[in-house]
Amino acid sequence: MKNEDFNCPVPFNDSDCVLMAHGGGGRMTHRLISDIFYPAFRNPLLEQDHDGCVFPVQEGRMAYSTDSFVVDPIFFPGGDIGDLAVNGTVNDLACCGARPLYLTAGFILEEGLPLSDLQRIVRSMRKAADKAGVQIVAGDTKVVERGKCDKLFINTSGIGVVPEGIRIAPDRVRPGDVVICSGPIGAHGITILSARESLGFETNLKSDTVSLNNMLSQLLKNIEEVHVLRDPTRGGVSGTLNEIAKAARVEIVLDEASLPIPDAVKGASEILGLDPLYIANEGLVLVILPETRSQEALAVMKSFPEGKNATIIGRITGEDNAIVKMKTPYGNYRIVDMLSGEQLPRIC
Amino acid sequence: MKNEDFNCPVPFNDSDCVLMAHGGGGRMTHRLISDIFYPAFRNPLLEQDHDGCVFPVQEGRMAYSTDSFVVDPIFFPGGDIGDLAVNGTVNDLACCGARPLYLTAGFILEEGLPLSDLQRIVRSMRKAADKAGVQIVAGDTKVVERGKCDKLFINTSGIGVVPEGIRIAPDRVRPGDVVICSGPIGAHGITILSARESLGFETNLKSDTVSLNNMLSQLLKNIEEVHVLRDPTRGGVSGTLNEIAKAARVEIVLDEASLPIPDAVKGASEILGLDPLYIANEGLVLVILPETRSQEALAVMKSFPEGKNATIIGRITGEDNAIVKMKTPYGNYRIVDMLSGEQLPRIC
Repeated sequence: MKNEDFNCPVPFNDSDCVLMAHGGGGRMTHRLISDIFYPAFRNPLLEQDHDGCVFPVQEGRMAYSTDSFVVDPIFFPGGDIGDLAVNGTVNDLACCGARPLYLTAGFILEEGLPLSDLQRIVRSMRKAADKAGVQIVAGDTKVVERGKCDKLFINTSGIGVVPEGIRIAPDRVRPGDVVICSGPIGAHGITILSARESLGFETNLKSDTVSLNNMLSQLLKNIEEVHVLRDPTRGGVSGTLNEIAKAARVEIVLDEASLPIPDAVKGASEILGLDPLYIANEGLVLVILPETRSQEALAVMKSFPEGKNATIIGRITGEDNAIVKMKTPYGNYRIVDMLSGEQLPRIC
Repeated sequence: MKNEDFNCPVPFNDSDCVLMAHGGGGRMTHRLISDIFYPAFRNPLLEQDHDGCVFPVQEGRMAYSTDSFVVDPIFFPGGDIGDLAVNGTVNDLACCGARPLYLTAGFILEEGLPLSDLQRIVRSMRKAADKAGVQIVAGDTKVVERGKCDKLFINTSGIGVVPEGIRIAPDRVRPGDVVICSGPIGAHGITILSARESLGFETNLKSDTVSLNNMLSQLLKNIEEVHVLRDPTRGGVSGTLNEIAKAARVEIVLDEASLPIPDAVKGASEILGLDPLYIANEGLVLVILPETRSQEALAVMKSFPEGKNATIIGRITGEDNAIVKMKTPYGNYRIVDMLSGEQLPRIC
């Protein structure tokens, strides 16, 4: 990218860092915007260059969501805090049944962060936004003193349009529904932990961060009867299913033998004393819908790379126990509860 | 507020603090939500209890904005980081000509933050939201280790509806327009600095943080010809007017004698070597409109407490110099430039 294309007379050097002055609202702030943010995010709405952006809307329903990202480390196998921040909010909107349209991005930067790191991250955000078909239309940057944040934190918010006829809500969950899991469980959390602690597991594991909206949009186009969509991020598959069980007052029974847990995740989890069901995922979705439509749903999901390993992992029983149970390979059952705290801090 | 109303069996104690586990997505996270966030923000959209909220929209135009808040200290005379975060985004939307509707709130909490401080802040957010007539409809909370952030950071994003006929944009600014300033300049920045450094100025200064949307909505209802609305936060009146002058390619001439700078701000600024024109304000708006409508605009603004000291501080000349000049009381002129960095870090 040529800086001179963007009204930036002097390109910054690799050794340049974020300074407190970059957060002051003066020339240095404008420089950061014109050198780094605008070249990466460039679109007509952002370039309205006001305190916010204005766009036309049609009558209908919109979804609105927000998420902050504090993942440590900021770069990791499979992604970085930038694409994670875009995919996270895109997926939250998609799990509301919406077609995501626009995102905002709020950056909190630590004084001393290399500008080259920031540039790499915003480019990664743009790439993720393009893949998901969304635009970053408004932003904000603050700078805090060295030691008052950890490299950078990113907040994204997003809005999208919910197509007519779609209603995703836990209270639609019914006995006879099944739970489809879109892919392998646990890769993101183990990858982050391994990268953070330099554990050096000899694995090919990488974060599963990916936007799910294209697959989910197709799924909803084919099957309006989808009852719940939820991405099992913090709290993992278990935390997410417990939330749904409680909200819907149903019993969910998982089949342990069917859980798609990669050997690398199993191995690392055993060594570290973690349970993969509580590990955060960033490219996974749980789909709950009537069993009668499940084969059709699996076919749609498998036609996308992010759903190629989709599989049924459980079903809703007739009991209104508001719990999640697991059927073990030996045929007995155990309760899968919600954790009190967390296994892994700062995984997203 | 009775905690038991909100499905919270054991109220938290004054000595309770934010723990890493509050950010884990498990029971402790749900507890934080049910004890602190829901009781304060409570509304049907938030209580959809999903990854985002869904609401109906009418055909038209919407405004969308985001802002992160890292102010230090988090409590200061006249407000706290909570009402600042609500008012800031409400004002950004109002300055797009929009009627703000919904906000999201993303919290990044430092391990060890007293829960009583968090509760005080979210209640202050609710109060500010009620005053502005907006609802906080989606949120997110992350926790980072002690020393990895500074007490708490808050991101708010917001959306609003832009009424038909309203078009706020710098390119509408014309020679013959005047600049109205809604009130006294510099109170917020000096208040924050004084509170942070315990300077103990013997002043009654307090932050001017307030939502401006009710006043601006009335102004636009009466006068569609308003060309620009902008709140002079970071970068101050000077930074904001320089941005407008550059975007509109016009010359703006301020009349120094007319600038509403309180004596307390003048005095503190002299001692500290600061220029009030570069100091951040959080409850001030600059209105640019044709001089022919200025008396009517002043009358509307003066009918609101937040605009009772509104006054004309400058005018747009016929020159396309893209600069801001100041006419001194001695009749000569000086350039009012944009600062490179900032005078005061972390004022919002």
